[in-house]
Amino acid sequence: MKPAVILLSGGIDSTTTLAIALAEGYDAYPLSFDYGQRHQIETQAARRIADSLGAKEHRVATIDLRVFGGSALTDHIDVPKHRSEKEIGHGIPVTYVPARNTVFLAYALAWAEVISAADIFLGVNAIDYSGYPDCRPEFVDAINYAVGLATGEAVVIEAPFSNMDKNEIAALAVRLNVPIGLTWSCYEGDTDPCRKCGACVERSQALSSVKAVA
Amino acid sequence: MKPAVILLSGGIDSTTTLAIALAEGYDAYPLSFDYGQRHQIETQAARRIADSLGAKEHRVATIDLRVFGGSALTDHIDVPKHRSEKEIGHGIPVTYVPARNTVFLAYALAWAEVISAADIFLGVNAIDYSGYPDCRPEFVDAINYAVGLATGEAVVIEAPFSNMDKNEIAALAVRLNVPIGLTWSCYEGDTDPCRKCGACVERSQALSSVKAVA
Repeated sequence: MKPAVILLSGGIDSTTTLAIALAEGYDAYPLSFDYGQRHQIETQAARRIADSLGAKEHRVATIDLRVFGGSALTDHIDVPKHRSEKEIGHGIPVTYVPARNTVFLAYALAWAEVISAADIFLGVNAIDYSGYPDCRPEFVDAINYAVGLATGEAVVIEAPFSNMDKNEIAALAVRLNVPIGLTWSCYEGDTDPCRKCGACVERSQALSSVKAVA
Repeated sequence: MKPAVILLSGGIDSTTTLAIALAEGYDAYPLSFDYGQRHQIETQAARRIADSLGAKEHRVATIDLRVFGGSALTDHIDVPKHRSEKEIGHGIPVTYVPARNTVFLAYALAWAEVISAADIFLGVNAIDYSGYPDCRPEFVDAINYAVGLATGEAVVIEAPFSNMDKNEIAALAVRLNVPIGLTWSCYEGDTDPCRKCGACVERSQALSSVKAVA
């Protein structure tokens, strides 16, 4: 069995990415982050998902991006409600954490090197990337090339949703029997999802689209 | 004044890099890391250097690469003595921390984005890179390109020592009046340098070469 590191936030996209890696026969090493987000509910969801799907080993790395400030997800400013991330202002949404995916991929690379994994799975999607610049496929391609040079080994970043939108991912999640009830998408930190933030709205739309087709 | 992030370990190379950034007229934002190394002496040295040279703002980001293990600098295994890093085994030295520079650069990128810095200074040297794969100029070029895509802004990684060896860097440090007494190179964590580890031996050779020329 080949080992692979899977970036696992605990949402539908990354959980489906984990399911894909397992379906492809990888030994799964999901990696989550406690990065000063205002709630721990994401990492708890990730733990339950990793257990439930039979991951080989799950790690939660503690990183502190608050040292730099600069985002609603780590600062103490309000998360905007009632609208999709994409509608907020022009360009980069306020829930953007600076260089977050770059930091996450660097950590994934570190673990991949330690366990001799040649593959890192990343659940970003190109079409519906909500304005985060480090989710763009050009970025994934470029970091892929750098990553190969960084380790002296060929490490490949697999981004299976590069050409999928949220609805297609939700449909795939259902086909792969992803435990959607264990996933968490909400940007707010309550015990129940707020159903109002951009992440909740997008999740609900995607899951509705699956039901509409079924 | 243009802001720049400077990766500052507290050794001669990164301190000289900070001096270069200041000499070029940048507002300097040095960034150091507490990454589970076995001693805090490095970050203390970095703080003193940042103060002494007149940095605008110094940050120490706490990151925990121990979560993955895999290196003498973060694990509890002995650091080899009496020999240069390059002589140990074939290829990558045991003091290599997996993907360390990649992680450091990702953090630098995060801070650069928050303070709108278009430049990140990195004190790696190409000729004498001691076998760390993520110090190679090909890596710096590739990550440079990825970094530009990650933020949607043009961020450039400056590696002024790409073509310098340790002796040339030491000579430049002296020319720029770098406070060499404040720097720390030793891999061991005592109050005085061990004078035996690879880093101590290289430091001593480089400083001797400057005296020999002078």
